[in-house]
Amino acid sequence: MKEKPTLLVTSSFVRGRFEEVSRLVNVISLAEIEEGELDKVLPEVDCLLVQGDWPDSLTPRRLSSMGRLRFIQSGWAGVNHIPFQHLGKRVVVCSNAGGFSTGVAEFALTLLLASSKRLVKLDSSLRSREFTPEKWGSLARDVVLLNGKTLGVLGYGGIGRAVASMGKALGMKVVAFSRHPERERAARVLAGSQGLLKVLKTSDAVVIALPLSKLTVGLIGRSELESMKTDGILVNIARAEVVDEESVYRHLVSNPSFTYATDVWRLKDGKETFSSAFPFLELPNFIGTPHVAGASSAMTGEPGRVAVENVLRFLEGRQPLNIVNAKEYA
Amino acid sequence: MKEKPTLLVTSSFVRGRFEEVSRLVNVISLAEIEEGELDKVLPEVDCLLVQGDWPDSLTPRRLSSMGRLRFIQSGWAGVNHIPFQHLGKRVVVCSNAGGFSTGVAEFALTLLLASSKRLVKLDSSLRSREFTPEKWGSLARDVVLLNGKTLGVLGYGGIGRAVASMGKALGMKVVAFSRHPERERAARVLAGSQGLLKVLKTSDAVVIALPLSKLTVGLIGRSELESMKTDGILVNIARAEVVDEESVYRHLVSNPSFTYATDVWRLKDGKETFSSAFPFLELPNFIGTPHVAGASSAMTGEPGRVAVENVLRFLEGRQPLNIVNAKEYA
Repeated sequence: MKEKPTLLVTSSFVRGRFEEVSRLVNVISLAEIEEGELDKVLPEVDCLLVQGDWPDSLTPRRLSSMGRLRFIQSGWAGVNHIPFQHLGKRVVVCSNAGGFSTGVAEFALTLLLASSKRLVKLDSSLRSREFTPEKWGSLARDVVLLNGKTLGVLGYGGIGRAVASMGKALGMKVVAFSRHPERERAARVLAGSQGLLKVLKTSDAVVIALPLSKLTVGLIGRSELESMKTDGILVNIARAEVVDEESVYRHLVSNPSFTYATDVWRLKDGKETFSSAFPFLELPNFIGTPHVAGASSAMTGEPGRVAVENVLRFLEGRQPLNIVNAKEYA
Repeated sequence: MKEKPTLLVTSSFVRGRFEEVSRLVNVISLAEIEEGELDKVLPEVDCLLVQGDWPDSLTPRRLSSMGRLRFIQSGWAGVNHIPFQHLGKRVVVCSNAGGFSTGVAEFALTLLLASSKRLVKLDSSLRSREFTPEKWGSLARDVVLLNGKTLGVLGYGGIGRAVASMGKALGMKVVAFSRHPERERAARVLAGSQGLLKVLKTSDAVVIALPLSKLTVGLIGRSELESMKTDGILVNIARAEVVDEESVYRHLVSNPSFTYATDVWRLKDGKETFSSAFPFLELPNFIGTPHVAGASSAMTGEPGRVAVENVLRFLEGRQPLNIVNAKEYA
C-alpha cells in the first residue's frame, strides 16, 4: 500500500511552493525515468503536471495503463494538447488560466498596436530601401489611432479581461464575447452567435482570447471575417485552430487593408508547426510571431507558481481551480 | 491702409474654426501665389501658419522683407524647423504642443512594446525562414514583460504625460525628466543633469519626448547611453538630433540586448532624411519608422484644429498658447 500519492512531472521543474508539494507526494520526473522503467512506473501515478507539449512517451496505450490517475494540471493556459479521448472519466483536468494573463495580454496589445501603426511594414520598407519620401503620404495614411475606436475581445477570462482593461486605458470602447453575458466596468459582454456577430460588426479591432475546444474550433470563418470592417484588425493570441486558416488567408488577399496578427500556429501530431499551408508570410498585411506571448510570463515564474498552487489544492483535498469540462474537448 | 491683417498659410488647409479665422484676416495660400508675385505679397503678411516643412520659397532674403510679420504658428508639435536666426525680434513663434499627444504617445507605446517583445525580429525570423523550433528558446528568452518594470520619460509635456499614463496603465513604475521637478499621480518628475542621470539609470525603458532646442541637441550621447541598463530600450518619437547618432549606433553594436527604436531621422537642408550615416537598418536590435507617429492624429484633424484655435487667440488679442523661447532655438 502506498503512503503518499505519486506526482509525475513532465519536465524537471521547481517553482513556488514545490517543497510543500514534495512533502505531500512522491515526485518523479519523466525525464529521469528510463524508457524500460516507464511501464512499471505509470500505473502508480496519481497526478500529472504537464509542462509544455504532451510528451510523446505518454502514448494512448500507456495512458490506458494509468489506472490510478485522477488529476492532470496543464502548465499552459490552454488544455487542447491534453488527449481527453484517452483519459478515464474520473480524471480531472485543470487549465492554468491566470498564470499567463499579464504577459499574453501585453503581447496581444503589442500585436494590436503594431497592426494599427503598420509597424512591421514600415520598418521593412526602410530596411529594404523601398521607402522614398514620395511614398510617405500613402504609408502614413494607413497609420491609425486606437483612441476612440472599438475593441472587441473574444473570450472574457483572465487574458481577455486584461486585454479589455488595456484597451480601455488607451481610450478604446470595449465590447466582449463570452458564454455568459454581463455588464461590468471595462466592457459590455455579449453571448451567443448573435452576440459574436455584434462584437465582430462593431469592432475596429478584435482580439481572440478563447480556449480551443469543440465549441470554438473554426469559430472565425469566412462569414465571420466578412462581418468585420474591411480595414479591421484581427489578433490571435489564443490557438490557431479557432480561426479557419484558408478563410483568413483569402480574406487578407481580398482585403489589403485588413490585418491578421497571430502568435499561434496549427498543431500537427501534437506539436506546433509555426507554419501554415497558406503563404501568410508573404503578405504585407500579416504579422506572425512563433508563440512567444506567454514567454515573458514564464520568465517570471508566475505560471509555474500558479500551476503548483493548484496541484497543492488537489492534494490537500480542496477544490482545484479552472477544472475544464472534458465534454467540450473529448 | 489695410483693414484686416493678412495670414499666409503654407499649404491649402481648412480645419476647425477656419471660417472664423477668415472673417478676421485675409487668408492667402502660398501654393496659390505665383513666384513672380511673392516678393510683392510677403511684406504685407502679418501672420504665418506653417503646415509641414519650412517652405523652400521663404528664403532668408524674403523673410527679411516681411517687416509686418508678428506671429508664426507651427502645425507640428516641434518648432526646430523654423529659421529663428532670420526672424525679427518681435515675431512670436508658437509650437503646436497638444495637438499630437494621443497619436504620438500611442506610437511611442507601440515602439516600446515592439522592442520589449522583439516583434520585428520575430516576424522577420519567420518570414526569412530562419526560424526553426530549436531556436525557440533563445528567441523566447528575450521577450520581456513591461508590467512591474520602470519607464523613464524624457520631457513631460503633452506627449510625455500621455506616455506616462499609458505606462502606468500597463503596471509600470514611471519616472520622468523635465525642466521643473514635480510629483504627481502618474510619475515622479526629476530635473537637472543629476535628474536625467537618475532617470536613465533606473529605467528599463526610456521614451524621448523632448523638443529639439539648443538645450537638448545631442543630450543623449555615449555616457548617457552607458548609464542605461545594458538590455535597456530607448524610444525616440521626438527629434533625431536629441540623440547623438554615432554614439547610439556604436552602443547598439556593443550591446546586442539594447534596443533603439526611432520614428525620427536627422534633418538635412530642412528636410527629414529618413536615413542615417550609420547602418542602423542592418541591426536586429533597431526598429525604424519614417516619422509617422503624428500621422494618425493628423487624420483626425485635431492638430489642425488646435493650430487654428491658437491663430484665432492671437488674432483676437488673447495670449496664444505654447509660445516658445526663441533664445533656446536661435
